[in-house]
Amino acid sequence: MENLILLSKEEVSRRIGRLRSAAVAAGHAGTMLLADNAMLYYLTGRVFSGWAYIPVDDARLPIWFVRRPVEMEGGNVVGIRKPEEIPSRLEELGYPIPKELGLEMDVQPYSTITRLQAVFPDAKSFNLSPVVAAARSVKTSMEISMMERSGVIHAAVYSKIPSLFSPGMTDFELDVAIENLSRLEGCLGLFRISGKSMEFFMGNVLTGENADAPSPYDFALGGKGMDPSLPVGAAGEEIKPGTTVSVDVNGDYTGYMTDMTRVFSYGKIPAEAVAAHECSIAIHRQFRRMAVPGVKASDLYDMAASMAREAGFERYFMGHRQKAGFCGHGVGIEINEIPVIAPRSRDILQENNAIAMEPKFVIPHVGAVGIENTYIITPSGARCITNAPEEILPLA
Amino acid sequence: MENLILLSKEEVSRRIGRLRSAAVAAGHAGTMLLADNAMLYYLTGRVFSGWAYIPVDDARLPIWFVRRPVEMEGGNVVGIRKPEEIPSRLEELGYPIPKELGLEMDVQPYSTITRLQAVFPDAKSFNLSPVVAAARSVKTSMEISMMERSGVIHAAVYSKIPSLFSPGMTDFELDVAIENLSRLEGCLGLFRISGKSMEFFMGNVLTGENADAPSPYDFALGGKGMDPSLPVGAAGEEIKPGTTVSVDVNGDYTGYMTDMTRVFSYGKIPAEAVAAHECSIAIHRQFRRMAVPGVKASDLYDMAASMAREAGFERYFMGHRQKAGFCGHGVGIEINEIPVIAPRSRDILQENNAIAMEPKFVIPHVGAVGIENTYIITPSGARCITNAPEEILPLA
Repeated sequence: MENLILLSKEEVSRRIGRLRSAAVAAGHAGTMLLADNAMLYYLTGRVFSGWAYIPVDDARLPIWFVRRPVEMEGGNVVGIRKPEEIPSRLEELGYPIPKELGLEMDVQPYSTITRLQAVFPDAKSFNLSPVVAAARSVKTSMEISMMERSGVIHAAVYSKIPSLFSPGMTDFELDVAIENLSRLEGCLGLFRISGKSMEFFMGNVLTGENADAPSPYDFALGGKGMDPSLPVGAAGEEIKPGTTVSVDVNGDYTGYMTDMTRVFSYGKIPAEAVAAHECSIAIHRQFRRMAVPGVKASDLYDMAASMAREAGFERYFMGHRQKAGFCGHGVGIEINEIPVIAPRSRDILQENNAIAMEPKFVIPHVGAVGIENTYIITPSGARCITNAPEEILPLA
Repeated sequence: MENLILLSKEEVSRRIGRLRSAAVAAGHAGTMLLADNAMLYYLTGRVFSGWAYIPVDDARLPIWFVRRPVEMEGGNVVGIRKPEEIPSRLEELGYPIPKELGLEMDVQPYSTITRLQAVFPDAKSFNLSPVVAAARSVKTSMEISMMERSGVIHAAVYSKIPSLFSPGMTDFELDVAIENLSRLEGCLGLFRISGKSMEFFMGNVLTGENADAPSPYDFALGGKGMDPSLPVGAAGEEIKPGTTVSVDVNGDYTGYMTDMTRVFSYGKIPAEAVAAHECSIAIHRQFRRMAVPGVKASDLYDMAASMAREAGFERYFMGHRQKAGFCGHGVGIEINEIPVIAPRSRDILQENNAIAMEPKFVIPHVGAVGIENTYIITPSGARCITNAPEEILPLA
């Protein structure tokens, strides 16, 4: 038998407290039933198959309904096989049947939600997904230290990238070499994305023309990929002299991801590419100062876009043939968290947000430039946790 | 500009024809609106962001509503930004507003489905997911040839596994070496799973005690994994003499996956493990003969379970501390397709089903044994497309 909960009692209470506060802030006082892997991991420190039941009454403990794995134990751990068993188990434990119930409507399939609604026919259900996003956007100290650990390993892997390159290599071969190094350094590989529309394997290595190839996914940059079944990233083309190589590879070393991009050059690259890269570094410098609690995410986007415009790179900013609608995003257990740094974002920065800022430029025929760092928001500015040289480094 | 549709007109018609027939067989004559990446890839040969609109009237062509990537063209390719634009575009094209509308209710989030229902307030919606699963379970010749190509490369990679091993290696290091070789041979890496509950990176390499560690996911076998955020597979433990190493690594070389497991031994392994492995091979032999169109999937499970029982390995069959509820499954664009070879499966085999059959045994303290092959169902039996030696091969 093994204890289900891998977090301390205090950490579990803290996270549940954040969820409850976020629910109240959104106008709900309801009970919550969660089943998303990312949320079960958030609440317990472990992915399991089952449901976390958080009662509205904070004098009552949560109940952990576990389907798999078998042999789990702990306070309020209840083994069940299907959600239809939940109401009778609640009664056995002396918990009231909820009148209002929060469900993860943005991530759970329609059939799953309607099934849960049928299990609680008298409860009014509400969409818990925005509540979850709000709660998770402010990291605890423990979460921040896990992200910092990912950031240190992530940066160490990136420092070895030039040693992996040899002339004649394709973008795909360099990508696979970086993936391999990352895995050997303990990268878990899984790239968690909320929702089902975005897909990714592990790395996005973009060079030359391919950096400008539009992709279906809502990532900052594209690339046509190796196959139309996964049209993003490296295209299997030789890395040619006079091009840049932008590397944006999975930083999931702890269950918490850092997001980081660095740019390398092969041979002499055009001055325009170097200047655009310097503009990205300058935007980061400004971001570090400006990104404090209370600032509007949209103001940070406007800052980045206007610095890009003033430097004369508006047409390359966040893509050329196809543009991304954002230049930064929350990150943590998943890659697409809030706040989102976008023109119409309504997010307001809070202390201990974790934000991946990625002002990038696509220079036609040359490649992508601009760096990405992961930051923790503090009252004195954004603190970088992916510390590595920021200039364009030569590959060979 | 690039043509959106990468399949021939005939292939697109064939696949849409299967969808329509499956809808009719399920009692629906409705129009269908699809957005799942796996389905857009199925219908066009490419993943894009958008919606495929298949009118009920088969005299009318499908409409491809594309959000991203930009610069796509082709007959009935219509660029839109959000689904609310669909009804007015239908009117412009002279298409009637549907009275009944199939939506992917088992895979699309609740919020997405209710949004689409609001776009078509007068249409009665129905769950398209079982229809989609039924249509995709019977592969076209083109799909089979893509799976065959994956199978050939998959088998070639497996033939090199013993050369990747060196004494003292951990299960994780061997896993990473196999992943790296797979990637260099063109594995796309992405392991497509329908739904959100199952997660996986790329490989499941199980040895010794860890083969018996229960996992939350509904895979045939478990393993505790490297981190509680992804509790499946290799655990970072040294491969010890006297154990088996079961290798079940991603076979996605073409957008279509093959699923394949082989077992290796390190040092002398117990006779019981060898005998259970031989039982798995015997079950496969029987499956090849018995798995013809018209056979019940549940009868195939019963055959496997009773052969396991008669050989005295019931307690190890499909797991020991935790058991899987199936011993085979459909495979194609995704890993969890139909038919499912399970005791209460209602699936009936059809010609050109693709089935991964995986009768496995977990021998406590030793590891997992038993092979997995991917088969195409033909009138004369199941044809294996993952051809490689089936016996336990020594690692060193």
